Amino acid sequence: MPSFEALQDKFQRTIVFRLRVRLADPGDVREAVLTAIHDAGARVGEVSDIATDGDGIDLDIDIFAVDDAVIELAHQAASAIEGCEVLSIDDLAMDTHRGGACEIRSRTPIRSNTDLRIVYTPGVARVCKAIEADPSLAREFTNIPNRVAIATNGTAVLGLGDIGPVAGLPVMEGKAAIFWEFVGISADPVLIDTHDADEFIAVVEKIACGYGAIQIEDVAAPECFKITRELDARLDMPVLHDDQHGTATTVLGGLCSALSQVGKPIGNVRCAISGAGAGGTAVADLLLHAGMADVVLCDSKGIVHRGRDGLNDEKKALAERTNIDNIQGDLPDAMKGRDLFIGLSKPGIVSVEMVRSMAPGPIVLALANPVSEIGRDDALAGGAAIYADGRMMNNALAYPGIFRGAMDANASAITQEMLMAAAHALADAVPEGELMPEMMDPKTHQSVAAAVAAAAKK
Amino acid sequence: MPSFEALQDKFQRTIVFRLRVRLADPGDVREAVLTAIHDAGARVGEVSDIATDGDGIDLDIDIFAVDDAVIELAHQAASAIEGCEVLSIDDLAMDTHRGGACEIRSRTPIRSNTDLRIVYTPGVARVCKAIEADPSLAREFTNIPNRVAIATNGTAVLGLGDIGPVAGLPVMEGKAAIFWEFVGISADPVLIDTHDADEFIAVVEKIACGYGAIQIEDVAAPECFKITRELDARLDMPVLHDDQHGTATTVLGGLCSALSQVGKPIGNVRCAISGAGAGGTAVADLLLHAGMADVVLCDSKGIVHRGRDGLNDEKKALAERTNIDNIQGDLPDAMKGRDLFIGLSKPGIVSVEMVRSMAPGPIVLALANPVSEIGRDDALAGGAAIYADGRMMNNALAYPGIFRGAMDANASAITQEMLMAAAHALADAVPEGELMPEMMDPKTHQSVAAAVAAAAKK
Repeated sequence: MPSFEALQDKFQRTIVFRLRVRLADPGDVREAVLTAIHDAGARVGEVSDIATDGDGIDLDIDIFAVDDAVIELAHQAASAIEGCEVLSIDDLAMDTHRGGACEIRSRTPIRSNTDLRIVYTPGVARVCKAIEADPSLAREFTNIPNRVAIATNGTAVLGLGDIGPVAGLPVMEGKAAIFWEFVGISADPVLIDTHDADEFIAVVEKIACGYGAIQIEDVAAPECFKITRELDARLDMPVLHDDQHGTATTVLGGLCSALSQVGKPIGNVRCAISGAGAGGTAVADLLLHAGMADVVLCDSKGIVHRGRDGLNDEKKALAERTNIDNIQGDLPDAMKGRDLFIGLSKPGIVSVEMVRSMAPGPIVLALANPVSEIGRDDALAGGAAIYADGRMMNNALAYPGIFRGAMDANASAITQEMLMAAAHALADAVPEGELMPEMMDPKTHQSVAAAVAAAAKK
Repeated sequence: MPSFEALQDKFQRTIVFRLRVRLADPGDVREAVLTAIHDAGARVGEVSDIATDGDGIDLDIDIFAVDDAVIELAHQAASAIEGCEVLSIDDLAMDTHRGGACEIRSRTPIRSNTDLRIVYTPGVARVCKAIEADPSLAREFTNIPNRVAIATNGTAVLGLGDIGPVAGLPVMEGKAAIFWEFVGISADPVLIDTHDADEFIAVVEKIACGYGAIQIEDVAAPECFKITRELDARLDMPVLHDDQHGTATTVLGGLCSALSQVGKPIGNVRCAISGAGAGGTAVADLLLHAGMADVVLCDSKGIVHRGRDGLNDEKKALAERTNIDNIQGDLPDAMKGRDLFIGLSKPGIVSVEMVRSMAPGPIVLALANPVSEIGRDDALAGGAAIYADGRMMNNALAYPGIFRGAMDANASAITQEMLMAAAHALADAVPEGELMPEMMDPKTHQSVAAAVAAAAKK
């Protein structure tokens, strides 16, 4: 198991290539190649032996880098080693997304005319008539109850901003791939080419009957609030905005895990959040719902408080339900004396001093991606008892199980209680000494699903 | 190879069950069981031996029937045979559609955190940025160029009428299954809950950027004409209404095959069509485009002619471009002296006399489903040289290859030339002595695709 620091160091390098090399002599050369790559500024991930027919040994070396220039340097460095021949170099993200990350397949083979006549006309008429007579049979004889629309207009894709739905599609396809691989859900990217919230709502409402649930994805604030609220009100099915509710669930899960490590009840915790967009707002709401003593949010103009000039309607309402003492000022004022800091904003805006000004032994969750509000070393230097960054708190821990559970329970909505149940299931699944459960363990997603389904039935 | 009559007899029975029986003695009992099923009014399809551990022999017997009562009779008849135990009886159409006929899957396994970081954030950002910088890369790094929306409002599903999009979904899922199995296309059922053509158009236009092509499906006339025309004009991608263009292509394919058998050039052919809805209108247009001498259409109120009272706009325009001599009257008047009859209407409305009134050696394509305008025996008695019904002329011969070819060629529309190319490819693929090519032969769909792609590039 690599150390956290090693993982963090590797994963801050977001570009992944795979270098295939042939080594004349596997002994010293192997080590020399890996060292050369490291010295070029890249980090080495998995290294796999590849069977060869001829002499020598072939290796696949995954290398992580901050940009293409470092990849090129690492490539040159490996090539320069005597006894090492670079056979190929592959851009793994581009290669994985070539042709798309998901596809729509038949669930049944069609090998004969009888097969065709059953899956299609005339045999299918029998299925249609059965559903026409009893619409509830659509849950049994169509893919609807296992089908989620991932609806986006591409106005807030990752940290890239408003790049539009087509450029954002690889994210939606990636989510669909995760849905399938983790919980067997058919997730359908739906690209809606509009900046208008009402138009977005109208389109989703018209096509919703083909789905069992709706995931709103990468829609900018404040439009995302109205869109999620309206669709939740109009549709008799689960509607979730991952950037709001997925984030809130993951954060609450990690927080519960952290609080149990420091032995502090959530009712005693006072929190400062940097970022008052989709994520910050939803996190604040879920934390308050979970019983937190107080939450104060900061945006780029300072603390959100009642009476602040120029607040939009969403933030006015937010000011009403947060910031008990109506404190004013900037982020340093917000953090002073607080037990918990949650960053959902920008890199590097929290200093060691600001952490030091918090209550003793604070929890620091600095979740900006890919670079945090404050690094681990600085946070610990400021006295943080527990630290996590965005790489440890991935929404993909939460949303697959939330949808699986909600759809299994045939829930008509996703409630705060269901999100709390998901968060507690995450916290319960954390291995000794960790802050979050293992993403690749199917039991993680199964336990979230079971908890959500149970909460839905209450 | 069973005779055409045997196939027709079997396939007019649209309900298919599978009976699993255990025979104490495989000799006489087997024949007795099959005879009993036949005598109960059902027809036997495939019979498969199933391996057993114990004594006796297990058989799976596919049985075709007109309704559930006949299935029950056949079941009882088989059970009554001494030495035959019925182990199970399965409703194949319902079973095949249980859980839906298609699903959305990942195209890449996610087995490690590195896999996750490539298919999803942060690695996916690289793919998004590449597409943002050069939108044409969406063809390479997303599923879009292989993705068809099957858009329906369920207003004209098979012969069932306006049963709504959800009850119609099994048809869309069946089409998606065919798309995948025959030509590897990802086809996405899109259910649009509206009766309003403008609203339908607006929804499809807003979500079209996520697809490489649009198939309009099971939308009632006359709305389907406006919807198809408008979307074709507004979208820079192939738009096809299967009930119009798929039907027209299949009919022209069969007709070319028939004409080459009787040695008649299409320019000498005068045609009567029963049915002036989506299918009839599109067939007329494609036949005229292919050079047919004249086409007259009949609807439930008689021959469509210039000056007829109460014609809607679509039929007024149709009257302008068909019926050269502007003849009036009913279907018998339309058929008199014609070389070709095409039925896309209702069962049993054509008599032996009406066929006899046609030009010598006419071609009769009686395509109403599941029961034809006139049966084979009656048509031949009336002097038909060639006869086909709807079971032989299935749209699934045409649309998979049309979309495969159009999308492979990155076509911006589907033209009449592309449909003609598809029809000729179908006719060229017909085996000696048949009227249509083999549905289950991958070469059928490949040759349609190649012809359409070549026509698209002209």
